[in-house]
Order: sequence, then structure tokens, then C-alpha cells
Amino acid sequence: MIRLSLIGIGTGNPEHLTLQAIRVLQEADRVLIPEKGRGKEDLADLRRAICADHAPDVPLAVFEMPRRDPAITDYAERVEAWHDAIARLWQEALAPLGQEGHAALLVWGDPSLYDSTLRIAGRVARDLPMWVEVVPGITAIQAMTAAHAIPLNTLGGTVAILPARRLRDHGWPEGAETIVVMLDEGTSFETLPDDTQVWWTAYAGMAEEISIAGRLKDALPRIRAARVEARAAHGWIMDTTLLRRGDAGA
Amino acid sequence: MIRLSLIGIGTGNPEHLTLQAIRVLQEADRVLIPEKGRGKEDLADLRRAICADHAPDVPLAVFEMPRRDPAITDYAERVEAWHDAIARLWQEALAPLGQEGHAALLVWGDPSLYDSTLRIAGRVARDLPMWVEVVPGITAIQAMTAAHAIPLNTLGGTVAILPARRLRDHGWPEGAETIVVMLDEGTSFETLPDDTQVWWTAYAGMAEEISIAGRLKDALPRIRAARVEARAAHGWIMDTTLLRRGDAGA
Repeated sequence: MIRLSLIGIGTGNPEHLTLQAIRVLQEADRVLIPEKGRGKEDLADLRRAICADHAPDVPLAVFEMPRRDPAITDYAERVEAWHDAIARLWQEALAPLGQEGHAALLVWGDPSLYDSTLRIAGRVARDLPMWVEVVPGITAIQAMTAAHAIPLNTLGGTVAILPARRLRDHGWPEGAETIVVMLDEGTSFETLPDDTQVWWTAYAGMAEEISIAGRLKDALPRIRAARVEARAAHGWIMDTTLLRRGDAGA
Repeated sequence: MIRLSLIGIGTGNPEHLTLQAIRVLQEADRVLIPEKGRGKEDLADLRRAICADHAPDVPLAVFEMPRRDPAITDYAERVEAWHDAIARLWQEALAPLGQEGHAALLVWGDPSLYDSTLRIAGRVARDLPMWVEVVPGITAIQAMTAAHAIPLNTLGGTVAILPARRLRDHGWPEGAETIVVMLDEGTSFETLPDDTQVWWTAYAGMAEEISIAGRLKDALPRIRAARVEARAAHGWIMDTTLLRRGDAGA
């Protein structure tokens, strides 16, 4: 069996690496390096830097990431086809290992959280005898709560984690004092009540980290401006937003 | 200003430590070690072992954790009084640092997640000139999803994280395909529909780790038996449960 280790590397801070991540990376026979994943060159560079620093002798298998096909209009179908295309590239990259050997893939954040790696690995495992191992890493949510030094949950409360699309389409999830909005292309939370408390962080954990917090009414214009400025400066932005009902307590 | 670093150490696997956690621990002038927190000696032992391995020269300030006062019947009041008592002990342990210096506290998992440390730090900061820094660590949720090699969320879906008490009192949070139940003293999820998918892990990330997964109907008797056996063997149990609606997809 091939051993495939999906290693969470945290959110761009090389110090987010765990001792387990470093050990498993060093044990690998080959590291898959997808280039231009999500259009972010910084990310491929980070993966290369981690390998150079901690496992300089492990060979890299670099491949270019396919793009989602805009001709497929249905969202789920478009993602399916994209995952299939990535799975084919992984198979090519794994081929030199034969029927055994150990490959590693460095995953931004943690492989569990709004990430396709585990789903793609599942596809590859249909065709190759493969055992998938996960090494957890610091997520953007944790890097964001750390940046603000705040708890994720209120005392005894519920936290809902959801993509921005869900917040826009279905509103605030009932029963949750706190929500965390992921994969936001803008400020999906701008129509929430004025007294909502917001904690926003972009590039969480990285040198470029920016954090803004306050009542939504006051913080929103600052977040909008920071987004525009940061996107212009870096060419990309990844941000995470925690929102708490105004009456939620601490 | 005193610098207080709350360092997430992961869930009992010494390899969960990040490079950042190790660096900040080594920079500290003093490490606060609460004994018998949650009645788990293993946890105090883990903290001591981490210090001995990575920062043997940093002095330890050991203090005994108070217990919650069962005479206070209201839950929120009982927790408040307990946090006040802990805050007083922290102040004593920090006193030798004077008006400056750097103290570290090792927090199980991550300081953001169902943990009182940040709230207690907030109390202490009312009386002492103090700056609180958070170093994120691997959470029980991540160690659990890693153990099963599963994603936390369904594609584009919502995840609700909640204490068992909330699930018992209010049922499944509306709109969430996935829920994660924390702080469960038993199997709070046993009245959910039979086709609910369950992933359960105790001692996530530790050598004693136990994982069970399947349809709730099939997995529940096995989880119940494993809980009884593990509690008898170790004297304590900490488990985390992920549940997915039977119709939620992947």
C-alpha cells in the first residue's frame, strides 16, 4: 500500500508546523507540490521553503494545478470535475512509488476544514492501493482567534462555521451565539444587525496579518477599506471573520 | 507590562507542539503549572514533561487548582466564582515577575475552544498590567477528524460546534449538516435518528486513542461499551463526537 500523508502546515507562519508534521515530512519518499493552487504563488513558495528547511533530501514532485472549468455552470458539478482532474495529476505524481512508498502533501491550515484534499485522496484511493493519514495543523480559525486573543465560543454557547455563500443565502444559523464565516469573497456579513460584534483577520498568522474588531457598524467601513488595500498590495487575500450576536455575552 | 503567553499544546501528543509553542515557552521567565486541573493528573504530567523536554531551564510555578463549589447551584454563578478563585491563584503565581517579565501557561488543545483560560486571563488583567498573547495549538476536534481522516464539513456545508448540554436541551441546530459535540459526560446524541453518521474518538491524539465510526444505530452500543471500559482503565475520559445527518452527503 502507498502511504499518503496529508500534513496540515498552518496558515503561512512557518512556526505553525508541529513536531509531528516535521517528522512525517522527513519520513516521506516524495512530496507532492501543487503549483498555483488557488492562484496563490505565496503558497507554493511556502511549501517549497518548508521542504527546504526541514526535509531538504526528500524529492519534490511538482505539478501544475488545473483550474475550475467555468463552462460547467452547476457549482457541485464544476467542483466534481475539478477534483477529478486533480486526482489524475496526483496519480501521475504517485506513480513512481509503485505499489508502496510514502508520499506527503502539505495542506494549508488543516486538512479537515473547507479543504478538498481529503475528497481528492478518496478518489485516488479508488484506483490505487493507498492508505491516507492526516497530520493536523493550525487552522485559519485558530490563527484568527489567536490574533485577537479571544475565545471561539461563548460560555456554554454554540458556534456555527459556514461558508459566506450560506450566510448570504440562509442568514444567521438559528441557535448559534457565534458564527465563523469562511471563503468570503467580500463582506457577506454587512447586512447583519449593527450591534453584532465582529473580529476580522486577513493573512492570519502571516507577517502581513491585519486584524480589525468592533461593533459591526463601526468596523465594517474599516474592513472594507482594508480588504481593498490588501488585495491591491498582495494580489490575493484570505480572511476569516468571527461574528457574535450583540446580546450573546462573553 | 507582564507578558502572559497562553500556549496551546494540543491534545496530549507531545508531537502536537508547534515550533512557535516551543519558542515562546523557551522565552518565558516562568511557567504556571496548575495541578489536578479537571482531576486529570495525566495533564499536569504532560505539562511537566513538555517543560522538561523543551525548556528545562525555565522555572515552574506550581499551584493547586481549586474545585467548583457545589454549594452554588446556578451554573453560571458557579463557573464565575471558580474563575475568580483561579484568577487569584494566577496573581500569586505572577507576583514574583513584578511589573514586567514573561509568564507562560500551557493550555490543553487550543486556548480558543471551550476553555476558560482566556476568561481567567481577562480577570487578572483587570488588576495587573498585563498583555495576553495566544499561541494556537491542535484542538481535540482536529485530532478527532485526523484520527478518522475525515473532513469536518460537507462540501459548502455548515458545521455547528456545541456542548452536549445544548444538544440535549435544544436538539440538532437547524441548518447544520454536521455537528461536533464537546464536553459530553455520556452519549448525549443517543436519541438522534438511526441513520445519523457518527465519528467518535476518545483520548484523541494520545497513545490511548480509541475511534469508532458508523451509522448511529450500529455504533452507539460500541461507543457506550468503549466509554465504560476506557473510564475504568484510565480513571477519566475525554471524547469528541462528530455527527452528520444521514442525508447530508459528503
